[in-house]
Amino acid sequence: MVNIVKIGGNVIDNPEKLRSFLGEFSKIKGPKILVHGGGKIATKMAKDLGIETKMVEGRRITDEDMRDVVTMVYGGLVNKQIVARLQANNCNAIGLTGADGKSILAQKRPVKNIDYGFVGDILEVNAPFIKLLLDAEIVPVFAPLTFDMNGDMLNTNADTQASAVATGLSSFFPTNLVYCFEKKGVLSNLEDDDSVIDELNPTNYESFKSQGVIYEGMIPKLDNAFAALRSGVSQVTICHADELQMALETGNAGTKITL
Amino acid sequence: MVNIVKIGGNVIDNPEKLRSFLGEFSKIKGPKILVHGGGKIATKMAKDLGIETKMVEGRRITDEDMRDVVTMVYGGLVNKQIVARLQANNCNAIGLTGADGKSILAQKRPVKNIDYGFVGDILEVNAPFIKLLLDAEIVPVFAPLTFDMNGDMLNTNADTQASAVATGLSSFFPTNLVYCFEKKGVLSNLEDDDSVIDELNPTNYESFKSQGVIYEGMIPKLDNAFAALRSGVSQVTICHADELQMALETGNAGTKITL
Repeated sequence: MVNIVKIGGNVIDNPEKLRSFLGEFSKIKGPKILVHGGGKIATKMAKDLGIETKMVEGRRITDEDMRDVVTMVYGGLVNKQIVARLQANNCNAIGLTGADGKSILAQKRPVKNIDYGFVGDILEVNAPFIKLLLDAEIVPVFAPLTFDMNGDMLNTNADTQASAVATGLSSFFPTNLVYCFEKKGVLSNLEDDDSVIDELNPTNYESFKSQGVIYEGMIPKLDNAFAALRSGVSQVTICHADELQMALETGNAGTKITL
Repeated sequence: MVNIVKIGGNVIDNPEKLRSFLGEFSKIKGPKILVHGGGKIATKMAKDLGIETKMVEGRRITDEDMRDVVTMVYGGLVNKQIVARLQANNCNAIGLTGADGKSILAQKRPVKNIDYGFVGDILEVNAPFIKLLLDAEIVPVFAPLTFDMNGDMLNTNADTQASAVATGLSSFFPTNLVYCFEKKGVLSNLEDDDSVIDELNPTNYESFKSQGVIYEGMIPKLDNAFAALRSGVSQVTICHADELQMALETGNAGTKITL
């Protein structure tokens, strides 16, 4: 079983939480992959550099300047800090963007109503290359960046990237996709941090959605999760960054997504 | 034969020259490695971010803020732009710092008279890992960054790094180390760009130095070159970035360093 773990921006932005999470991640036995989000450092860096964050109809646009900022912050600063910390934990990590080893090929999102700029829609995951690293006991750490064959780096959603990597690898290995974030799982009551839904299947998911219990940002994440299961991923779990080990070892933490 | 090519900051800083050089590099047949310098983008970025470039006795100091800038600029922006461009040239590149795959372990330079800050002195090159990539026809592209086992990224001299990688690999392969820069080779007259010294050996090197023909920045580069030859590297060449192919194919370009 290969564990593909996604860690979100809120944890990335907090050095103590990040360090603690990376400690947990380092303890996972067997082949594993980390996919990290971006966090707010890029937005702050862009502001400090006088680069305006462009929004159209409430959606963020990645223009060329912003693409260079995310390439440097996600692919350089955040990714290498994580890799160096994992190495200090005796976890032999390698930092990757989609361009490295042609690991995740994407295309610049086609312009329909909105031109999102340098945003990548994933076309293909190079599973044999990732397998080569895993077989050598190396731990891939993906920044949320892909590339196209025109020589452009592309900003990419980390949830989607984690799900694509898990799906791509599932032809070689059974795969377990784990989304770690700042909540204990999918909650049935956002006011109550302990109201974790143990298991979500398509039936109760529809019912929670129609009741308005699950909404907004959680919906694309869960749609991604169900899509991954339907495309060959063996297991999907959503849990707190601090409970990663518990979720993996005992299965008694977070929300399990099932078909 | 593995070609280990170092490209300097002057070429990195000029997008057109860089693109042309990467075209040349992509055409090299067989296993190859690129080591790139930093260029002036990091200094400009630091200035834009209000980070002061600290100097002590004329030497640049890498404090924590500057280390983060070089990690992001060299390891993120520059490295990934090069990798994406090489991929567009059908050259399957992978961007690496020393931390990635534990490829180049260093130690923070010990403080004697000057505390250089987060600067790495190379301890060990992980040649089996680099060999794994080369055997899979992947082209490592190193940013001038290493790491220590305390979780710190370290700024590192690209000439030294290229020489260490070539030396480390020479137990597995015959290696050819090529330093590319903006001159046609080592010149006997700095006023005349065509006064290339065809071959430098320890005897004429000493004589050129004592005549003052070779001086300043060229001396550590050449000392590095001779040291590499003494440690098992098969060939060292210094040539113009535009003449890389010619130097490799015909041997009729640049300066050959011999023992």
